[in-house]
Amino acid sequence: MPTFTDRLAAAVLEKRSPLMVGLDPRLAQLPDPVRPAGGATLVEAADAYRLFCCGVIDAVADFTPIVKPQAAFFEQLGPAGMAALGAVIEHARGAGLLVCVDGKRNDIGSTAQAYADGWLGDQSPWKADALTVSPYLGDDSLEPFTKVAAERDAGLFVLVKTSNPGGGLFQDRVSDGQPLFRRVGEHIESLNAAAPGEHGYGVAGAVVGATYPEQLAHLRAAMPHTWFLIPGYGAQGGTAADVAGGFADGGLGAVVNSSRGVIFAHEKRGGDWQDAVRAAAEEAAAELGEASGL
Amino acid sequence: MPTFTDRLAAAVLEKRSPLMVGLDPRLAQLPDPVRPAGGATLVEAADAYRLFCCGVIDAVADFTPIVKPQAAFFEQLGPAGMAALGAVIEHARGAGLLVCVDGKRNDIGSTAQAYADGWLGDQSPWKADALTVSPYLGDDSLEPFTKVAAERDAGLFVLVKTSNPGGGLFQDRVSDGQPLFRRVGEHIESLNAAAPGEHGYGVAGAVVGATYPEQLAHLRAAMPHTWFLIPGYGAQGGTAADVAGGFADGGLGAVVNSSRGVIFAHEKRGGDWQDAVRAAAEEAAAELGEASGL
Repeated sequence: MPTFTDRLAAAVLEKRSPLMVGLDPRLAQLPDPVRPAGGATLVEAADAYRLFCCGVIDAVADFTPIVKPQAAFFEQLGPAGMAALGAVIEHARGAGLLVCVDGKRNDIGSTAQAYADGWLGDQSPWKADALTVSPYLGDDSLEPFTKVAAERDAGLFVLVKTSNPGGGLFQDRVSDGQPLFRRVGEHIESLNAAAPGEHGYGVAGAVVGATYPEQLAHLRAAMPHTWFLIPGYGAQGGTAADVAGGFADGGLGAVVNSSRGVIFAHEKRGGDWQDAVRAAAEEAAAELGEASGL
Repeated sequence: MPTFTDRLAAAVLEKRSPLMVGLDPRLAQLPDPVRPAGGATLVEAADAYRLFCCGVIDAVADFTPIVKPQAAFFEQLGPAGMAALGAVIEHARGAGLLVCVDGKRNDIGSTAQAYADGWLGDQSPWKADALTVSPYLGDDSLEPFTKVAAERDAGLFVLVKTSNPGGGLFQDRVSDGQPLFRRVGEHIESLNAAAPGEHGYGVAGAVVGATYPEQLAHLRAAMPHTWFLIPGYGAQGGTAADVAGGFADGGLGAVVNSSRGVIFAHEKRGGDWQDAVRAAAEEAAAELGEASGL
């Protein structure tokens, strides 16, 4: 099997779309046809999340190579929510989409190994193609993820520069003339440069927010072997112009996540909720495809 | 209800034990009576984890105020593992123990809110008393956790200085004469100093490894309103002498985690596995009780 980044590159090229659709279900925002009545049990709410996310997947599959279910919203519903997450991943894979679980996991060595084993690849129970990972615990905590990802043709995206306003408090701290996020990026790039896939990207991607376009462009230049996951586009304020600097020549090297702007498109557009989602995904894919230079 | 740290302090004093027992089940190390035959399904493995962890809880309940199930090992078994985690938390609470889920979660604002809502307190589906949290995303990502914890008399433990050898790569980077982990600690201490409970500790605890005793003692002095969760004692190499500097006068202010050294005690001690676990917990509690000055 090709590596995760090679599969991602092929899917981006095929669909001419660097759009990643974030599956962030929230009970209060579900469209009427899938929203349970007030006072839903956890099991009813989890079933609504499953129905909603599977409906979103069906609506966006033509316009996006990859979806990103947000673990937090499923965890919020307890074990029933986690079962729904499993069903959503399975549905997305059945629709031919890649799946990156947004869990921002990590731990020390043997525990990180359990996360990597548990989430990544066909052999795992969850069968995700990729997982988001936090770098605070250092290089030995990232190693099990890169190793398992390489063995299973899966991927990971390590937090480098996040899209939230407070992200800079620790990420921007400068040592030896270099902010922490640049140091984290440098470490990831070194792993990827040692083992690039056919399209030139290694297994360890980087999360770099659309809300810091200058740093994004700078990191793009400094990390040529690293695929970016760019959050912050759309509802969080990042524009297509803001993310343009995140792509490499030829339009590869990044996927741009949109969650609320696509999945809750019925709130603004009205009409059939899946039609609204489909239209929003098509528009975002076209806008981002143009910005990327694909 | 008293705050989480006040309940923790009361339980530590009652049991004269600052021992925290880490519930890190691993299939290959389960004692014979609860280990499924080779080729167990995920559901069978998850049921074995549940049986094992509940058996550990029953064996250690007299000697520990708090248990720490490691989310990674349950997640590794897919949705069935998460159902087992729910059952283990419930059993521990039924045994009168506090429960800190070790998930090292975090995300940006509204998603962090979902993690906090989902995990913390009686009103949540998981009903944990506390959760471990990663700081990389900055102050606005910690805020939902401290807010929900304060509202629900729950707690959190933020990674400050982790016990693994590679933890220093990013945590030890110095800006303005101060390593990153000290800066993270300073931020947490400022939150706690503003709203200490009856015993003097705020809702936001700190994870500080036993494997760096000098930094531990330094942080203890710098963070008088912050309760510590100290990993790295026992199997990871930290001794009772190493953790002694983590306690405040009077023996409060820290719990010291032991996972493998207690839960897999049957491997070294033989005999009935629960007797072995009980004996290991009793010994660790006595040793740590002495080191703490309780």
